[in-house]
This record gives sequence, structure tokens and C-alpha cells, in this order.
Amino acid sequence: MRVEVILSPEEVVHHQLAGWVCVVIDVFRFTTTILTALEAGMERFFPVDGVEEALSLKRSHPELLLAGERNALQVPGFDFGNSPLEHYGKNYAGGELVFSTTNGTKAVQAARGADAVVLACLRSAQAVADYLKGQGRDVLFLPAGLEGKFSLEDTWCAGLMAKLLQAGEYGDGAQAAMLLHEHVPLEELAHSAHGRRLQALGLWDDLHFCLECSVSQGVVLWDQETGWGALARER
Amino acid sequence: MRVEVILSPEEVVHHQLAGWVCVVIDVFRFTTTILTALEAGMERFFPVDGVEEALSLKRSHPELLLAGERNALQVPGFDFGNSPLEHYGKNYAGGELVFSTTNGTKAVQAARGADAVVLACLRSAQAVADYLKGQGRDVLFLPAGLEGKFSLEDTWCAGLMAKLLQAGEYGDGAQAAMLLHEHVPLEELAHSAHGRRLQALGLWDDLHFCLECSVSQGVVLWDQETGWGALARER
Repeated sequence: MRVEVILSPEEVVHHQLAGWVCVVIDVFRFTTTILTALEAGMERFFPVDGVEEALSLKRSHPELLLAGERNALQVPGFDFGNSPLEHYGKNYAGGELVFSTTNGTKAVQAARGADAVVLACLRSAQAVADYLKGQGRDVLFLPAGLEGKFSLEDTWCAGLMAKLLQAGEYGDGAQAAMLLHEHVPLEELAHSAHGRRLQALGLWDDLHFCLECSVSQGVVLWDQETGWGALARER
Repeated sequence: MRVEVILSPEEVVHHQLAGWVCVVIDVFRFTTTILTALEAGMERFFPVDGVEEALSLKRSHPELLLAGERNALQVPGFDFGNSPLEHYGKNYAGGELVFSTTNGTKAVQAARGADAVVLACLRSAQAVADYLKGQGRDVLFLPAGLEGKFSLEDTWCAGLMAKLLQAGEYGDGAQAAMLLHEHVPLEELAHSAHGRRLQALGLWDDLHFCLECSVSQGVVLWDQETGWGALARER
């Protein structure tokens, strides 16, 4: 198994995705929120880039629930923002989420062309690593980053999973990510560029929740054919 | 002084360059070769993206010398390849180099918009850090990377200089680069993705030369107004 980590999201265009499982990571907060909403009972999610696209889908399908943020704040007219705590502990009887965020949904779309697309976060790190080991295919981690830039927390999360995979071959980016994971304490991630932005908004509870490692068994898959994602059913 | 390091070259489009000194790094081998050619007596250099642009310039100005590579090999019709050892120990009485490489010359052009553009490599790491300290301005390191991807050796070099600067504020990318510098031994850089490619071509002497740290006093500047670069004259 080969493992590579992309360090800036834009770099993905220079990678051949066919033949790889692509793992999209947006710790603060898209992939954490998606995992939490699905575990609370939402049936599936549909990531879109634009706010207008989401609103238009809702006009034609009023049963859809809209979720997402711009600059970390809930979009007007949406049903949810991008906080995992809106969903944690809930017990939904299904539901379909249309999701648009600044960084995360873009990264999911950028993974098109991979053999399979998985969404991961710190909370699902061990579960996703176990799932990937079971698949036995080459793995490319794609941190969503912050407005196109390197993200410390997403890359750290990729480094954690890369290490758990105990792969035979690590690319230069994977080695760098594993070094970050080894030498940057978990607590530091709350003070990354993105972490400080959430702090400034007073979102400490979100930060703490997003920084809990391997506490969930959920593995989120995204089907690029249909555009819908959901929890993996059989493991 | 703020210091940031871009981890994948494409990411530069998301950075505001005005107000920053941008330091372009292409250890294997563009910035190393430019430094060595200028120290051997070449007067100045002119980076261009395309081979055809270089050949066209030479047709109108036959005195120009063409240098560069594609896939690490000298371009047919060019006077030089991209090896620093073509120039080391020479004693040129001036000369103007038009230079086109796969990664390095692109990165120099991408630095347009910065307050000033410096070219650095491991051989000039300490000299460039001293120069930057003297300037006292915010510094953004731009590793040229390998075909748009993260480059271990360029980022390591950025981390070395970032540390030498003893800045008041380091961005997330700078912290990652400094960790790489701290924990990856210098010898490992010969086995990076780019290093292995040069090894496969038998370019061990080039690798060893490029991996000598802080052995030169030269600081290479590029003037984005004229498109020409040269050694800094006054320090």
C-alpha cells in the first residue's frame, strides 16, 4: 500500500487520482459535522459549492435540509450552520442534507476521479484507518485546507491516519504529515490559523469536539456518481 | 517580522504578496545553479517559462546564453543545462543567461507582486537569512516544488532559513517547515521524490553540491520590473 498526503488543496490537480482512494479531511468543521449529523440519524448528504445552488435545490425539493457556512457563520435561509454540536446527541429519523462550506465541499468535489472517496476527521481517524486497511488500496489524503492554504489540523489528522495504516511506501508529503503528527501536540491544533479564527468567534465547544480523536466508529463515504454521501453500511 | 512558508507552489495564488519579501527556493537545481553561475562571473539572468521564448530571444540577441532543462536534461540548442557543476570554478567575464526550467522559473514568475524577490538555496541559506534580517521585512518562502507538488528539500531549506531569522511570528506553514528541518536529517533530502529522480539519472555530484549548506556568501535578487536578476551588490 502506498500512502501520500497533499499539503495544499490546490496541489490535487497535479495528482493522478485514478487508482487511489482519496480521503478528504476538514477537521474544522465540515467532515466532523457530516459525521456527526449522519451518526445522529441523517440518511445522506449532498455537497454543493455554491449557496445559490443549495437554495435552488430546496426550492424544487422542499424536503431537503440546507446546511453550511460562509466565514464560519450559518448562511441566511439555511436550516443548519456548520457546527457538529447542532447534531450531536440528536436522534433524527432520516433526512437529507445539502451542504455548502467554504473549504470542505470544494475538497470533496476535487476528489472526483479517485477510485473511491472517503470523508475523515479526527473523531473517525481510527475507524477510517481500519476501513482503509480492509480495502488494501493506495491512499491519498486530501486536507481541505483554509481558503486554498495549508491547514495544520487537517494535515496532522492525515499524518495520524497515515501512521495507523502502517503502509509499505510513504510519499514525501505523507512523511511530512507524519512528522507533524508526531511533534505537534494535539492541543496546539486549537491555535492553528483556522483554530484561532474559530476562537475569535467564541466557538470553543466546537473546537474541543472536533479535536477528540478516534471516538467514533462511523466511516463516511461519498459516491461521485450520484453526488450523495452516507455512512458505510457494511464494514 | 512575520515569516510564512508556502508548502505547495500552487498555493501562492491564495497569498497576498504585497508587503512581503518573497524568497523562491529550488534546491534541485535552479536556484543553486543560478547562484553558482553568478558567482562564477555571469553578470545577470533572465528567467523565462518556455523553451521557445528562450530560443526566440537568442535569435534576436545572439550574445545571450541559454540555460535550462526539461525532465532534468539539457534542452537541445541551449548552451547549458541546469547543473551547477557546469559553472562551479569557472571564471566568466560577464555574460547574460536566459534560463528556463520545469519548476524554478515558474516559481520566480509566481512571485510577481511581492515587494522584493530573492532566490535562495541551501548553499546560500545563511547569507540569505542575514540579508533578510537586515531588511527587517515580512518574509514569505516559496518552494518551487516538483511539478506543482510539495518538495521536501525546498521546504526543508525554507525551514532552515525560517529558523535562522528568529522571527516574532511564524505562520502554520513556517512551523511545519521548521519541524521538517529539525527532524529530517540533511542526508535524507537526497532521497526525496526529486532527489531519487536525479539519482536515477546518475547526478550524484549535483546532489552532493546542492546539499551543501551555507557555503556561499552570494544573495541572488530578481527585479520583476526588468525581469533580470543578479547578485546583490551592496549588503
